[in-house]
Amino acid sequence: MNDKFVIGLDFGTDSCRAVVINAFTGGEIASAVSDYPRWKTGRYCDEKANRYRQHPLDYIDALVSTLKEALSACPEDTAGKVVGMAFDTTGSTPVLTDKEGTPLALLPEFAENPNAMFVLWKDHTAVKEAAEINELASCWEIDYTAYEGGIYSSEWVWAKMAHVLRQDERIRKAAYAWIEHCDWMPALLTGKTKPEDVCRSRCAAGHKAMWLEKWGGLPSEAFLTTVEPLLAGFRDHLFEKTYTSDTSVGYLTDEWASRLGLTTNVAVAVGAFDCHMGAVGAEITPHTFVRVIGTSTCDIMVASYDEIENKLIPGICGQVDGSVIPGMVGLEAGQSGFGDIYAWFKRVLSWPIENILSQSILVDKESKEKLIKEMNDKLIPLLSEAAAKVPITESTILAVDWMNGRRTPDASQLVKGTISGLNLGSSAPLIFRALVEATAYGSKAIVDRFLANGIKIDSVTGIGGISLKSPFVMQVMADVLGMPIKVAKSEQACAFGASMFAAVAAGIYNKVEEAQQKMGQGFAKEYNPNPGNHEAYRLLYEKYQRLGAFTEHEL
Amino acid sequence: MNDKFVIGLDFGTDSCRAVVINAFTGGEIASAVSDYPRWKTGRYCDEKANRYRQHPLDYIDALVSTLKEALSACPEDTAGKVVGMAFDTTGSTPVLTDKEGTPLALLPEFAENPNAMFVLWKDHTAVKEAAEINELASCWEIDYTAYEGGIYSSEWVWAKMAHVLRQDERIRKAAYAWIEHCDWMPALLTGKTKPEDVCRSRCAAGHKAMWLEKWGGLPSEAFLTTVEPLLAGFRDHLFEKTYTSDTSVGYLTDEWASRLGLTTNVAVAVGAFDCHMGAVGAEITPHTFVRVIGTSTCDIMVASYDEIENKLIPGICGQVDGSVIPGMVGLEAGQSGFGDIYAWFKRVLSWPIENILSQSILVDKESKEKLIKEMNDKLIPLLSEAAAKVPITESTILAVDWMNGRRTPDASQLVKGTISGLNLGSSAPLIFRALVEATAYGSKAIVDRFLANGIKIDSVTGIGGISLKSPFVMQVMADVLGMPIKVAKSEQACAFGASMFAAVAAGIYNKVEEAQQKMGQGFAKEYNPNPGNHEAYRLLYEKYQRLGAFTEHEL
Repeated sequence: MNDKFVIGLDFGTDSCRAVVINAFTGGEIASAVSDYPRWKTGRYCDEKANRYRQHPLDYIDALVSTLKEALSACPEDTAGKVVGMAFDTTGSTPVLTDKEGTPLALLPEFAENPNAMFVLWKDHTAVKEAAEINELASCWEIDYTAYEGGIYSSEWVWAKMAHVLRQDERIRKAAYAWIEHCDWMPALLTGKTKPEDVCRSRCAAGHKAMWLEKWGGLPSEAFLTTVEPLLAGFRDHLFEKTYTSDTSVGYLTDEWASRLGLTTNVAVAVGAFDCHMGAVGAEITPHTFVRVIGTSTCDIMVASYDEIENKLIPGICGQVDGSVIPGMVGLEAGQSGFGDIYAWFKRVLSWPIENILSQSILVDKESKEKLIKEMNDKLIPLLSEAAAKVPITESTILAVDWMNGRRTPDASQLVKGTISGLNLGSSAPLIFRALVEATAYGSKAIVDRFLANGIKIDSVTGIGGISLKSPFVMQVMADVLGMPIKVAKSEQACAFGASMFAAVAAGIYNKVEEAQQKMGQGFAKEYNPNPGNHEAYRLLYEKYQRLGAFTEHEL
Repeated sequence: MNDKFVIGLDFGTDSCRAVVINAFTGGEIASAVSDYPRWKTGRYCDEKANRYRQHPLDYIDALVSTLKEALSACPEDTAGKVVGMAFDTTGSTPVLTDKEGTPLALLPEFAENPNAMFVLWKDHTAVKEAAEINELASCWEIDYTAYEGGIYSSEWVWAKMAHVLRQDERIRKAAYAWIEHCDWMPALLTGKTKPEDVCRSRCAAGHKAMWLEKWGGLPSEAFLTTVEPLLAGFRDHLFEKTYTSDTSVGYLTDEWASRLGLTTNVAVAVGAFDCHMGAVGAEITPHTFVRVIGTSTCDIMVASYDEIENKLIPGICGQVDGSVIPGMVGLEAGQSGFGDIYAWFKRVLSWPIENILSQSILVDKESKEKLIKEMNDKLIPLLSEAAAKVPITESTILAVDWMNGRRTPDASQLVKGTISGLNLGSSAPLIFRALVEATAYGSKAIVDRFLANGIKIDSVTGIGGISLKSPFVMQVMADVLGMPIKVAKSEQACAFGASMFAAVAAGIYNKVEEAQQKMGQGFAKEYNPNPGNHEAYRLLYEKYQRLGAFTEHEL
């Protein structure tokens, strides 16, 4: 009767997920997923140039269809009782806007111009601009990259904006400010898109825009215009203040309320990045290391001010006060290759399938396609099954997991992967096992960096596809880390975390921690380390470190 | 009319080859191959224990059938004009004998006892005994291993004989001496099998039995009985003198002449190991590095006494005066893995075929078998084709070729293979290319060891399967070495080389060099190094050395 509902919206790389959640119990009423219609067709992207752009209309279309589908699956009176909504998105995924705050691609003259669209996190067109920012920051009076891990990435907003401005004269003339995807969604739905009205996300600004309160906000105009004179004036059109995601931006406008089938009583929270809200959904607390484990990992911790003691943890992806839970420092790290490494090995093993079987004239096309599908589907599961049976001491193979470079600790895009200790008996499952162990060693390197800087870790929580699907990978990780790993129950931990912020922004709870306590859904599974295996892995991890250091510095 | 013929017999691991050769022109009249009937069934072997034994009757059966087949393919009057015969065999492949020199397995009571049979070169049951020999040699007044590369191998005669004597009490009581396969064949056919009558091969004794003229022959009784008291007395039953293969042991006995369809005018040469005779067949001269390239390589050089200057080349497989060409020092080296490494990678890539395709119920058994055969047949050729197209500078992958340990330079069974420089774009052909380059770097390490010790190398000659079948592998090797590589025309270079020794033993030529000159068949192909590629490989080779050294010493 007195139920209240909140909605969490998670905008991922390829699709948007919505969950409708009971704000008191955390129970899921309904969920839905929608693809981005334009993105799906590959328009605006150029894989070879690492250019990945998303049209703002894709976000709107996906929002509307996902939300309608989710609401239509709820009991009839649900929509009227929705009181809060929150967004998480990928990031840094910014777009240039005009003076009104409208993404340029929404203007008719730029509707088909990729430079007027959101520059997706994984777009790497701004490599040169990132290098220039790093070079300047290293000799500037303030190292503005200090709280972002000490190395500014081509995936981040200032590099991307400088790049687009350099590229496109027409865009340059029309651009007045920029906005992150996670800020634009709440701004749009509450009618506060004008640059001076936008409530900027602490998470996005702190992790990607070099925003720090004690520096007076964004980097100085002098710094920005030294990087690129075309950035002149942007700082003044942007923001000094940022907000944590327990803050309400405002309420749905009449127009959006009616378009979405909701009321104007829906408070919309300040946005944040997916993994940060995901960590909250997975009930992050101090001393818990939360990992979103997929093709790569995004790792999140929170530390009290007492624990962090004004320290700057070196070589992680950033630390931002309030980027996860307000009142605590959010710490971000991650492995740039995880599931991607297993997928790479699968591609290597599939070479004969792609190049001989698929060309064979010995069987008909339909049989071939079925066989190829069967091999594709079974390859990783069967490899895992075989690899899981190998005793640790039996294999001599030792791998380093830098096939996609290294994000943390100590970002480097130059480092490469290695497989050593090979003999003529090194079978595919043994190699696969070594790769799984290598990704676990990469995890330990991050954990050890936190521990070495006085950030205590008692346990690990996994969210994301691999956590739920790969018991073998999770057990090896527990054994290597020597720590228990819990797997969050929610398959949509990010959207679920957003719903917790929605509940706080709507005033149902005073604090995020309270929302976690009341709404948390607990864990699906726990992996406990095998002490014997952990001891064996300690010695192997030392070798991993030596092998990695050698290939990085001596080769 | 006045033609004379000689026969070369090559006893390999799995089969015996015979060639009938015109002794004046070197032209091949006929050839034949026979399997070993008992060996083929796997009897007497235990792969898991690395036990590989061959029955003496297998050698006799294969000899008779191969020779009959070869002779039956010759013009009718050929057999009567055969004047010489020589044998090469694998080695060290020794057997224990009784006082008459009869291999124990030919006695009824031991007919089925593997310990009474020839212990094939690749049998590794004597690892412990080899270690004991090395330990003792390192602190003995004479280092008896010095001319065998400084490390005694479990593949060699003394280790094997000590092992068999320890294992088997009944054998121990019956054993009086031992004989190498390459010595037993000529002894048998000339009726000189009694230990005191056998003409022992300089090649076998010098390379595998620690025989050296200046030491007075074999290691001292004190040394041998300190290794293993059960060896007591053997030295006295064996030999002081050894012979080069230009020497005739004697003539075919009546019995063997009639059994083989030949006359008693056939001189039988002292035997030697296959690669040593193969090098002669491939027209080895000083400054030519001759390689038998197959699953592994066996590399042979000859050096004049002037060039060798009493030096001992460290870390090769041995140097023995007269082991290849009488009057010169024979030097042996080799890579313990070559084609085996490509075969290993093929096995890794075939895992999905073996474990998914072959279990699939989507297509019928016959289609599956055809598909599996097609993939097996095409895998290496297609990988080579794709790998050959990759420019050197495009790949970042660097591999070390120690997947089967390292034979030379500096033998070690502990070292392992490595593949480094991997990224998510490292495809199967790129990895294959790196493995081919690694085997070429391994070749360069051997070449450099000779050069560093003042043994000049002008060119390389390849014999064996890979030389004739893999232009890509040969070109990469030429590029890495920066040397031309010729490929011997004869597909049976070892048997052909044996026929040259037969011609000398029969008195047709005075010297092996003369036989080479008159009988040599020249080369099928020559690979010339690309100077640009060689320059690029020089830098990569330095990295290969550093990576290898790191994995060997620091991991």
